[in-house]
Amino acid sequence: SPLTHFDTQGQAHMVDVGAKAATHRTAVAQGRIEMQPATLALIASGSAKKGDVLGVARIAAIMAAKKTSELIPLCHPLALTRVAVEFELLDAPPDGGACGVQCTATVETLGQTGVEMEALTAVQVGLLTIYDMCKAADKRMVMTGVRVLEKHGGKSGSFVA
Amino acid sequence: SPLTHFDTQGQAHMVDVGAKAATHRTAVAQGRIEMQPATLALIASGSAKKGDVLGVARIAAIMAAKKTSELIPLCHPLALTRVAVEFELLDAPPDGGACGVQCTATVETLGQTGVEMEALTAVQVGLLTIYDMCKAADKRMVMTGVRVLEKHGGKSGSFVA
Amino acid sequence: SPLTHFDTQGQAHMVDVGAKAATHRTAVAQGRIEMQPATLALIASGSAKKGDVLGVARIAAIMAAKKTSELIPLCHPLALTRVAVEFELLDAPPDGGACGVQCTATVETLGQTGVEMEALTAVQVGLLTIYDMCKAADKRMVMTGVRVLEKHGGKSGSFVA
Amino acid sequence: SPLTHFDTQGQAHMVDVGAKAATHRTAVAQGRIEMQPATLALIASGSAKKGDVLGVARIAAIMAAKKTSELIPLCHPLALTRVAVEFELLDAPPDGGACGVQCTATVETLGQTGVEMEALTAVQVGLLTIYDMCKAADKRMVMTGVRVLEKHGGKSGSFVA
Amino acid sequence: SPLTHFDTQGQAHMVDVGAKAATHRTAVAQGRIEMQPATLALIASGSAKKGDVLGVARIAAIMAAKKTSELIPLCHPLALTRVAVEFELLDAPPDGGACGVQCTATVETLGQTGVEMEALTAVQVGLLTIYDMCKAADKRMVMTGVRVLEKHGGKSGSFVA
Amino acid sequence: SPLTHFDTQGQAHMVDVGAKAATHRTAVAQGRIEMQPATLALIASGSAKKGDVLGVARIAAIMAAKKTSELIPLCHPLALTRVAVEFELLDAPPDGGACGVQCTATVETLGQTGVEMEALTAVQVGLLTIYDMCKAADKRMVMTGVRVLEKHGGKSGSFVA
Repeated sequence: SPLTHFDTQGQAHMVDVGAKAATHRTAVAQGRIEMQPATLALIASGSAKKGDVLGVARIAAIMAAKKTSELIPLCHPLALTRVAVEFELLDAPPDGGACGVQCTATVETLGQTGVEMEALTAVQVGLLTIYDMCKAADKRMVMTGVRVLEKHGGKSGSFVA
Repeated sequence: SPLTHFDTQGQAHMVDVGAKAATHRTAVAQGRIEMQPATLALIASGSAKKGDVLGVARIAAIMAAKKTSELIPLCHPLALTRVAVEFELLDAPPDGGACGVQCTATVETLGQTGVEMEALTAVQVGLLTIYDMCKAADKRMVMTGVRVLEKHGGKSGSFVA
Repeated sequence: SPLTHFDTQGQAHMVDVGAKAATHRTAVAQGRIEMQPATLALIASGSAKKGDVLGVARIAAIMAAKKTSELIPLCHPLALTRVAVEFELLDAPPDGGACGVQCTATVETLGQTGVEMEALTAVQVGLLTIYDMCKAADKRMVMTGVRVLEKHGGKSGSFVA
Repeated sequence: SPLTHFDTQGQAHMVDVGAKAATHRTAVAQGRIEMQPATLALIASGSAKKGDVLGVARIAAIMAAKKTSELIPLCHPLALTRVAVEFELLDAPPDGGACGVQCTATVETLGQTGVEMEALTAVQVGLLTIYDMCKAADKRMVMTGVRVLEKHGGKSGSFVA
Repeated sequence: SPLTHFDTQGQAHMVDVGAKAATHRTAVAQGRIEMQPATLALIASGSAKKGDVLGVARIAAIMAAKKTSELIPLCHPLALTRVAVEFELLDAPPDGGACGVQCTATVETLGQTGVEMEALTAVQVGLLTIYDMCKAADKRMVMTGVRVLEKHGGKSGSFVA
Repeated sequence: SPLTHFDTQGQAHMVDVGAKAATHRTAVAQGRIEMQPATLALIASGSAKKGDVLGVARIAAIMAAKKTSELIPLCHPLALTRVAVEFELLDAPPDGGACGVQCTATVETLGQTGVEMEALTAVQVGLLTIYDMCKAADKRMVMTGVRVLEKHGGKSGSFVA
């Protein structure tokens, strides 16, 4: 079966990666949180250090990347060598959607498995932290479009969405 | 400012909830992961206990709800009294979107703050776990539409999306 | 079904305890690790502060009690009010078994659920820590007889084994 | 002294493994939980996906293996490359004991220390999770016979119980 | 003995606080990190949001307060109701010492034990985070003068240093 | 900027160490807690195994070293190969200060980044644990003089304070 996290009896296991080479791995994930323009304005006005929502969310996202193997049951623990998280304010997003904040996380390691789960976890927790900090003003925010943009390294080669 | 997580100097803090009454609080959050029909078929065929993707994701989601205050920097720790997580296979979702799996989390507590962050975290980690288990088959899955459906208890009263 | 951790559809959930009264709860659990007499002698000789195996194991057991809800998926988080861990050297155990070390953990809380899982977890991690510290001398140690001795508080009343 | 976790002054330390080669390490541990036949029947009936006790316990065991160095004070952190956990229903165990469930955990790494503590921790938490899920039906279950079955890799060579 | 964390046999335990009233508790702790004037200038110049050392350290300090009972073996877990962390740049500290950054943490709860350990832990981790972020520029920084300033609530009454 | 934890836009990130060689790294950190002579006498009398404050603090310090990357936001996770923690009773410290306990932590790894943060974290948590265990007797204890004594390995070479 293509579901490699299950053995031939259908039981979940942490897949054996012992025979895989430790190579340089990179993954980039992205997603966004949509909100009212007034909520976005609150975040934007905070960027001058008074109420730095995105600064807090960035730290939460980086710390979450390090916790990925604690959160995702069958994920291998990995010693990450880099985590970077960028936020972009979307006044008028290219796809015609609502305004909001876009989060992009880049994670690297030298290891035996890929790091797309770490990048996705960073994005999700970054967005959740923005939700937490703005929810007193806007409870209808939606976290959306969270996906892997690209992934490099390992036997399966590169993936670009 | 409506951004209550910052004090008057604009510095982040964990808000004082000491004067708030400990009341019964409920929150329901929902989101989905979109995928290829063939990927959904793999999950569906696993529901007969051979490769139970959703069973694993449910446990991950419940455990993540308990870790919320470790992940979200300014979130208060809470002793949850209930966590329930439901998955629904979406062959043809009502909104005309892609097929996939919908995740709904319900969280309750008797406490001084709401539990919508716990419900949202459960949904996000449940979806991430599905991504992890199916990524060997489909790297283009997208986690989307994660939001609070309803929230009850506390001084601010009920919210229904 | 008597398996209360599953709902009527058979899906795991963290049971709703919101309607249960917060009462004083106590649980006592016990177990032992069996070993060669020479290994036990090493532990006994360490009791004079040089190589205090049991002192280290006691701390590990107490800290593990606090981690129970992180380890056991459907366990409710609880604010423990007391944890005590006792060790007894068993030169000639009453039941005629091998010699070893017996561990007894007592845990209390004021809460909505019992604390037998916390007491059992403390015992298991206490025994594991003894195994870890003595394994260079003896790999055939066996952890055995881990059970709940008694449990008080809550609607179901007292249980004594 | 054979108690390598203490220095020459008798003080606990995390042993220096910096000079040891990173080799392929494997360990297998096993233990069982004994229970009433009626309790075992509940677990057995759940194997058809309605109330999947063993599926939940397997995830808990795998996640616990990854937490070993947080639980056991002097244990080195290790990046595990494989964790597999098997359960067997024991209607009439070969040694004439009570009926119950046997848990076997296999752990592998490429590292400087062995992984028997990770395998033992997986077994203990797997058994604890079964206890938690069945305790409403049977409080007299006993976790027993937890030991290392085999261990390979590293300078000390293979151990088979 | 005044060392309440040991029982009459001299064994460590987590003290029984079950009979203590849950009252409002506050603690304030303070400490500082001393450094070269040039290092302090780097931190000061970052306060305009480019390289916000203190913003990162504040989040680390708040999150550490929530982790206190995981770090301090005999500390009771507590549901904190408030955590606030202030930093002050010390160009010429009143006591004639080196220049540096002073950290003050205020923690509150409604609970059965005091929160001075949480306040001290927040200060220590806040200072450690500043060390981490500035160590490429200055390895000779010293963290110093970490103490409890005041503490209120509970049977023993108020303490003011 | 010398503040390497920020990128050119001034945003915090976990620095890319993927291109750095994995070399043997050592760091030694030290600090002390000052207290009343009567408090020190309590600790000293406990050294005969009845109320072993320093034994508990040593375990807390070692376990904290393993948690460093969870506490310090931009710290890389590392697989430590050695942690040793020493305490010295200071009746009359050489610098004429108050009496107290000095803590020295030595940490080693084979990795891509230094381990001074792990050594400093071990010292801080060791001192905090002493504070916790003696605070019923003495609330005016001060943790002070925490710094890196030496650091070896890596491209930047050795540092000795």
